[in-house]
Amino acid sequence: MSKPEQPNVLKQPLPRLVARQPRGFVDRSSPDIAATDRMLAAIRETYELYGFEAVETPFVEFTDALGKFLPDQDRPNEGVFSFQDDDEQWLSLRYDLTAPLARYVAENFDTLPKPYRSYRSGWVFRNEKPGPGRFRQFMQFDADTVGAASVAADAEICMMAADTLERVGIARGDYVIKVNNRKVLDGVLETIGLAGEEKAHTRLVVLRAIDKLDRLGPDGVRALLGEGRRDESGDYTKGAGLPADLVDHVLALTGAKGQTAQATLANLARVVGASARGAEGVAELEEIASLVAAAGYADGRVEIDPAVVRGLEYYTGPVYEAELTFEVKDDEGRPVRFGSVAGGGRYDGLVARFRGEPVPATGFSIGVSRLLAALKLVKSPIVTDAAARGPVVVLVMDRDQVAHYQAMVARLRAAGIRAEMYLGSSGMKAQMKYADRRGSPCVVIQGSNERAAGEVQIKDLIEGAAQAAAKAGSIADSAEYRAQRLAQFSVGEDLLVEAVREVLARHGG
Amino acid sequence: MSKPEQPNVLKQPLPRLVARQPRGFVDRSSPDIAATDRMLAAIRETYELYGFEAVETPFVEFTDALGKFLPDQDRPNEGVFSFQDDDEQWLSLRYDLTAPLARYVAENFDTLPKPYRSYRSGWVFRNEKPGPGRFRQFMQFDADTVGAASVAADAEICMMAADTLERVGIARGDYVIKVNNRKVLDGVLETIGLAGEEKAHTRLVVLRAIDKLDRLGPDGVRALLGEGRRDESGDYTKGAGLPADLVDHVLALTGAKGQTAQATLANLARVVGASARGAEGVAELEEIASLVAAAGYADGRVEIDPAVVRGLEYYTGPVYEAELTFEVKDDEGRPVRFGSVAGGGRYDGLVARFRGEPVPATGFSIGVSRLLAALKLVKSPIVTDAAARGPVVVLVMDRDQVAHYQAMVARLRAAGIRAEMYLGSSGMKAQMKYADRRGSPCVVIQGSNERAAGEVQIKDLIEGAAQAAAKAGSIADSAEYRAQRLAQFSVGEDLLVEAVREVLARHGG
Repeated sequence: MSKPEQPNVLKQPLPRLVARQPRGFVDRSSPDIAATDRMLAAIRETYELYGFEAVETPFVEFTDALGKFLPDQDRPNEGVFSFQDDDEQWLSLRYDLTAPLARYVAENFDTLPKPYRSYRSGWVFRNEKPGPGRFRQFMQFDADTVGAASVAADAEICMMAADTLERVGIARGDYVIKVNNRKVLDGVLETIGLAGEEKAHTRLVVLRAIDKLDRLGPDGVRALLGEGRRDESGDYTKGAGLPADLVDHVLALTGAKGQTAQATLANLARVVGASARGAEGVAELEEIASLVAAAGYADGRVEIDPAVVRGLEYYTGPVYEAELTFEVKDDEGRPVRFGSVAGGGRYDGLVARFRGEPVPATGFSIGVSRLLAALKLVKSPIVTDAAARGPVVVLVMDRDQVAHYQAMVARLRAAGIRAEMYLGSSGMKAQMKYADRRGSPCVVIQGSNERAAGEVQIKDLIEGAAQAAAKAGSIADSAEYRAQRLAQFSVGEDLLVEAVREVLARHGG
Repeated sequence: MSKPEQPNVLKQPLPRLVARQPRGFVDRSSPDIAATDRMLAAIRETYELYGFEAVETPFVEFTDALGKFLPDQDRPNEGVFSFQDDDEQWLSLRYDLTAPLARYVAENFDTLPKPYRSYRSGWVFRNEKPGPGRFRQFMQFDADTVGAASVAADAEICMMAADTLERVGIARGDYVIKVNNRKVLDGVLETIGLAGEEKAHTRLVVLRAIDKLDRLGPDGVRALLGEGRRDESGDYTKGAGLPADLVDHVLALTGAKGQTAQATLANLARVVGASARGAEGVAELEEIASLVAAAGYADGRVEIDPAVVRGLEYYTGPVYEAELTFEVKDDEGRPVRFGSVAGGGRYDGLVARFRGEPVPATGFSIGVSRLLAALKLVKSPIVTDAAARGPVVVLVMDRDQVAHYQAMVARLRAAGIRAEMYLGSSGMKAQMKYADRRGSPCVVIQGSNERAAGEVQIKDLIEGAAQAAAKAGSIADSAEYRAQRLAQFSVGEDLLVEAVREVLARHGG
């Protein structure tokens, strides 16, 4: 088809590019990077204390190696960013850190120590619709133990999760590590006739319905287990289609938590009935409960909770979730629990996809930005101590003295003091504004008069701001401040480093 | 077309997945991660000392925002991994950290302090043919100053580069920061009739020819400036097509380095002749030389070198390169300089693509894995001190005592000692082998006899290995070792932590 009305765009000036980002991708600023780095270091230290060692896989894998394990796998693009290599093979950006680890372990199986404890943090990508707090690039921090069939490995990760939360600043009592077992759910589904390969899809729908318990409450889950549910936006989600009595049976599982671990285990044993797989799941939970108790973590830090199922299809045994229990306000201002910041479970089938033999594995993933958001709320020292002052700024009063100012800066840096010379072309007022914007503790000024006298002026910006604030308040306060110390003073240029050090010391270094 | 001979693959069992990685992507092991993290921390500290602050952009950008600035842009896929979003817009994985920074600065121009000094490290991606030491995912560490037209900003980054190399363990004298100016090259090309938009492609070919001087030598560059060059593999690269006298003139530029900065600048002034742009470039180099001298870096750390041009098209003024000068062996065992580990320059046009007005900027990028390779060669403490011991391993001698062993491990961890319980299902011999493989300093053993006596055995694996080595050598040495200390000893279980601490102290903590 011809479009005769279209102008000849090639003769037009090139349109200016718009500086913008694809939806769901965001930049990170300095305070966030600093706080995140401190948090990651604290997590790393805890994991190393538990004998885990670092390993990292690249961002790109063969699409088939990653598999299709996302909760949204039924969507057309499957939630993954993919592209073809020049030999036409499909590659994808990793969507989690578990599938690449399975590939890594399978590829290096013979040379790795077994059991193999490892950890890694890294960005993962989801080709999904972004929303508030929901990004298409986000960071996870994983720890996994591969090659250990014993649930002692699962129990260990649960305890490590508790230690990690306390290490980053979540107080004991403000979190709980909840443990359940997929075999228990399998057992329940078996008793209501949902065993076998041909019921796999229904089981998955049931699983994801239960996983939404926190968000939708029992009535929402009840609807999803039955015919289906229409949400507030009008979107309809088809349900598992279970009759009412079977829905009740499934909900009995999620409500099986008792006052004690023993009571919960007894309830679960009742709900799984005669299912051998269900009984196996209950026995594993019993073993975890006893290990957790022996290590002293049964004081509310690690608890059996039958309502936890996790949304991923590939879990085969214990599943666990770290929930923060303190209250925050939701979008409508109602108080709600902060909720899950991490979770994981046993995935004995993932490495087997490559090896052709079962390889037991269990692992745990922290949502890094979600945990950081929690640390901000509880004012963890990890976040509050990360706020850094700006550098000392040496002002440029005379253009032809740039080399001399540069030499002053070099002296400050050689003394380990963060410092810079103003590099713009503006006058003194703009330079002061710049220093203010950088959060500088002080500026160094040398005009021709000071230079003639062999001196420099040091202007303490924090003190200056405090005095200005006091002046705006009461005269008495202001006089008191003035008496205490000078916001601006002159020293011999040879004492530059000492004078700046003194100002830094005034404000805690 | 029908393919009647093809078997019905759906009835065959699913083929087992092969655990493999796409070409040019590699995993990172624990020692490499630890050494890299330490190196990045050292670089970060240096940059912060210079007043630079962290900022990070995501991995994915709109393809048009990244532009086409790769040296290989003439190849069909343009060296970039790209994919379409669900609204059909093209997205790409970033191929460097400079283009995304330009987008970031343009998008946040009004709120950023100016000049804006920032740094970031991160992975970048090139859709290129991988080779030895050439990956499709690699890490860069960048620092940039945006909004400073003064070459004091360029001089500062050169000095910071020198400080950074020393900080990570490259000795003074083993590196040089070479500075040149694109305007000088532009001036030379102007004098030989290569000015103007229609000669842009030829200028780029000349630029890239000179950039290969280190690798190909003067004869190779001469061929590329003239008709072209056939390499050892038989591949032919078309040249710039310059006649011999003009080739000589261009090569006179690359050979303009004198014994002193003054001599070099005088040579350059001669080569650029009457070109105003060339003279401007020489004047800027003169200013950089004077700033570098005033700050004390003209002692061979930062030098004017007319042979440096950098391969990227977008540089508009000073260009600089960090070269390591110590010798290594090349593939054929011949001694060669280690070469470039970092480089950068002024790119006043990149932010302007979005802003429609010129925004001066200069920046510098370190090739992280290449610098790490250099640190390994010079045995920098950054690398050698990163080698960590494995955790203490508590062996599982009796399956029914797992909870008790777990409690021992918890005590060690509570004391800050990295420790783990063996989580596999193998016997004692395999457990000892496992501890050995993990690099454990010692194992803790409690069988039924020790338990009855309320004791644990501590086996010092490092001492044990030393004694075995000594025994294999001379009896005298062996006896001496035995007299000094015991490789295996028993203590009361209540003294577990103290005993393990003593063993760790034997081997430096």
